[in-house]
Amino acid sequence: MGKFTPFLISRRLNQLFEQIVCKKSGNVGHPFGSHSFSSRVGIPDSRQNFTQTVTKNAGDRVYASYNVYKGKAGVSMMPCLPTFTKLDSGNLVISRRGSVMLTFFPAIGERKYDWTKKQLFSLSATEIGTLISLGPRDSCEFFHDPGMLSSTAGQVRKSLTIKSHADGNGYFISLNVVNNMQNTKEFLSVPFTAGEFSVMKTACSFALPHILGWDQLTRPSHQGMGKVVQPNKVDREALSLEWER
Amino acid sequence: MGKFTPFLISRRLNQLFEQIVCKKSGNVGHPFGSHSFSSRVGIPDSRQNFTQTVTKNAGDRVYASYNVYKGKAGVSMMPCLPTFTKLDSGNLVISRRGSVMLTFFPAIGERKYDWTKKQLFSLSATEIGTLISLGPRDSCEFFHDPGMLSSTAGQVRKSLTIKSHADGNGYFISLNVVNNMQNTKEFLSVPFTAGEFSVMKTACSFALPHILGWDQLTRPSHQGMGKVVQPNKVDREALSLEWER
Amino acid sequence: MGKFTPFLISRRLNQLFEQIVCKKSGNVGHPFGSHSFSSRVGIPDSRQNFTQTVTKNAGDRVYASYNVYKGKAGVSMMPCLPTFTKLDSGNLVISRRGSVMLTFFPAIGERKYDWTKKQLFSLSATEIGTLISLGPRDSCEFFHDPGMLSSTAGQVRKSLTIKSHADGNGYFISLNVVNNMQNTKEFLSVPFTAGEFSVMKTACSFALPHILGWDQLTRPSHQGMGKVVQPNKVDREALSLEWER
Amino acid sequence: MGKFTPFLISRRLNQLFEQIVCKKSGNVGHPFGSHSFSSRVGIPDSRQNFTQTVTKNAGDRVYASYNVYKGKAGVSMMPCLPTFTKLDSGNLVISRRGSVMLTFFPAIGERKYDWTKKQLFSLSATEIGTLISLGPRDSCEFFHDPGMLSSTAGQVRKSLTIKSHADGNGYFISLNVVNNMQNTKEFLSVPFTAGEFSVMKTACSFALPHILGWDQLTRPSHQGMGKVVQPNKVDREALSLEWER
Repeated sequence: MGKFTPFLISRRLNQLFEQIVCKKSGNVGHPFGSHSFSSRVGIPDSRQNFTQTVTKNAGDRVYASYNVYKGKAGVSMMPCLPTFTKLDSGNLVISRRGSVMLTFFPAIGERKYDWTKKQLFSLSATEIGTLISLGPRDSCEFFHDPGMLSSTAGQVRKSLTIKSHADGNGYFISLNVVNNMQNTKEFLSVPFTAGEFSVMKTACSFALPHILGWDQLTRPSHQGMGKVVQPNKVDREALSLEWER
Repeated sequence: MGKFTPFLISRRLNQLFEQIVCKKSGNVGHPFGSHSFSSRVGIPDSRQNFTQTVTKNAGDRVYASYNVYKGKAGVSMMPCLPTFTKLDSGNLVISRRGSVMLTFFPAIGERKYDWTKKQLFSLSATEIGTLISLGPRDSCEFFHDPGMLSSTAGQVRKSLTIKSHADGNGYFISLNVVNNMQNTKEFLSVPFTAGEFSVMKTACSFALPHILGWDQLTRPSHQGMGKVVQPNKVDREALSLEWER
Repeated sequence: MGKFTPFLISRRLNQLFEQIVCKKSGNVGHPFGSHSFSSRVGIPDSRQNFTQTVTKNAGDRVYASYNVYKGKAGVSMMPCLPTFTKLDSGNLVISRRGSVMLTFFPAIGERKYDWTKKQLFSLSATEIGTLISLGPRDSCEFFHDPGMLSSTAGQVRKSLTIKSHADGNGYFISLNVVNNMQNTKEFLSVPFTAGEFSVMKTACSFALPHILGWDQLTRPSHQGMGKVVQPNKVDREALSLEWER
Repeated sequence: MGKFTPFLISRRLNQLFEQIVCKKSGNVGHPFGSHSFSSRVGIPDSRQNFTQTVTKNAGDRVYASYNVYKGKAGVSMMPCLPTFTKLDSGNLVISRRGSVMLTFFPAIGERKYDWTKKQLFSLSATEIGTLISLGPRDSCEFFHDPGMLSSTAGQVRKSLTIKSHADGNGYFISLNVVNNMQNTKEFLSVPFTAGEFSVMKTACSFALPHILGWDQLTRPSHQGMGKVVQPNKVDREALSLEWER
């Protein structure tokens, strides 16, 4: 019924790219230590453990994820903006692409989740494009090899499957991780209602231009970016060189 | 014809959450006292009473709602942004989730509405997702229990129904409130044309990323938020930890 | 084939409102006098006359319209933002609603248009909602009476018709103005390709939250608005009063 | 199967316009010289050559394109914002329209592309409207004549074809350039998956209001634009002159 579209081939180059730019950025601890939020009382007991993927010594970050908690597992999603590098010319180019990070974590009891067993899957722009164009009976699958192009190529295989319910009224979003080095297999699957998937699609559609860095072309710059950029000047001249040939 | 999707199960955790974080924040008076707007002359006589839900001693707020006035009742909608809490680490996390607040009020005469009999229903992100994915012949229903997890659990039951017209050219949006403590039942129903529902969908789609706090990840911060945040730094390192395992 | 939805009834209150708030704001002259733009050379000869509706003594405004020029007439569209009034409480409320203004002008020769014979039609939020939800074979019609509720009620009748092409690949957007006082009838019709209508829909969808003032709820304020507003505080407490009853 | 919509007629005026406003803005060199990005290691060897179309002596620009690399060719896309001119009245008008620039480049080996043989095609607002409204089995074609209205009219003919795959699961985007002066014909074709085309549609939808300049009407101004503009004042009075007649 739903068409099943593997993206093995067209993703090769992207994957290559991702694997290199998405460097590990430090140790990952329990994100907020023992800090408790009065506003999170309603959240399961392991609340300190599963809020977000955070690097230690972070500071000045904003954490705002959309979370779906279900019986056997949960998933958290949050956009990761691209970073820019300043060239000698004074121009900025994207040095690390943005993505939407999915963090899966298994349930270990009623409304209890084990954040230490989380599994990550970073959706690229094109994967987001695929996701947001899925019809109610469509499905798709994405493959990532974290060790690609390195000596550990093929040792860890991740696949993310988005599979529509038979009645067209929701999806299963499942992450399968086969780690040949640790000889482990993990499967985390979260059923999404149509409403939850609609939130994911809307939020990812919103995030996509930001992930591509296109918002930087169209919005005033700010000091946080190192050097001042004036986007309104950005393409004044870069414009329509079409006619030059 | 239209499918009818109850969201009882998947909403449980959200509801639990909402009930705790959405604290009562003071007495609610008539929002603008006797202040009259020349621009509101065309609005029904009870205009001072039904403009918006406002807390006393507010100040520096912006009120911009989309209102639909019909023969038996009217409804007003406005986004409520999330609030953030600053951690010791300097990071910000969402402490209260955003929503789109619906305020229903009954008609008490031709173009007269009784704002004192207003009934509120706060749409969560997932409920908004459901709403914006409704097709022209779809319907849905949301249930809220304001007393959930407290000693008054089950005493007040609210249900919001969005039901498509038989001809697929509009919806009825109805709020049903059963209050066992006061032994009252209230039913407020507002017919929406396709155009009015399209405004609601478009406005809610716009609001959704803001309600999730994703706009804070992608936009420069401002002084109003207490401490300066530099969103462009936000996820520089938090990015793609996918490859770490 | 296409369904034809008149909006006579549900528009009554809006119209009432519009007529009062949308005051005439001064004499309207030829917008840019004899100022010529090198970049507008390709535009018809009467270019100084038909660029935009502008009030004299304007200053510090931005004019950016989407224009469609066809054989018998052209149309220009541009969003008009709402204005806010500051209350004694320090809060801001919308005092004049936003809209998307359509300006029609007849052709008086090949690529020549007579801006002095322009006819205006201001699309309200709900009319925009109707427009952006039109399917490829749908049609709709809006009626405005500029003299509504005044002594000249019914003297001038405007109707805007959006009618899909039989092949579903475009629309006719036509403005009909019957002026009984001047005993004139004017009919201006502009065929839109599917692509041009798609621009109109996308631009109007973008404009809609701004017309409602919802962007003010979610974005940092700026000095241009008179007093500083801190939108992030806006609804901190106004939030979820749903639970209070 | 897919309908094929040529846009020869309705594009004439636009084309005329484009040809005049999109002036050549200086010599075009290799954008980043020998500067190498560690983050671009995964990108083909000719990476310095094909990143973006840039003018020499640029500075303070942001480069963020969405690129699709395939076996025989690749394409890069990036929005070009409009530019504004300040009038004596202090108002700003669009002096050069925005666009989304497509840059095609041929493959010259496995994952090697020849940036020096790039071909540009600048999508106007209406062409973007056509693109984003394409259904999964639709197709369209755009024609540009860079020499239009000049002595070289008809010497160079460019046509961009977007043609859906037979299975409705992707598109071919192809640029055909016939240069009678140089007696050359070039054909560059890039297959897009449904996901890649979805990114293109979403990014172009995001860019469209910015290309029209409508974001300037609705957002605070910034210093980069030369003179301060206060968009909130912009159309306070320009609003609804509909009622004046």
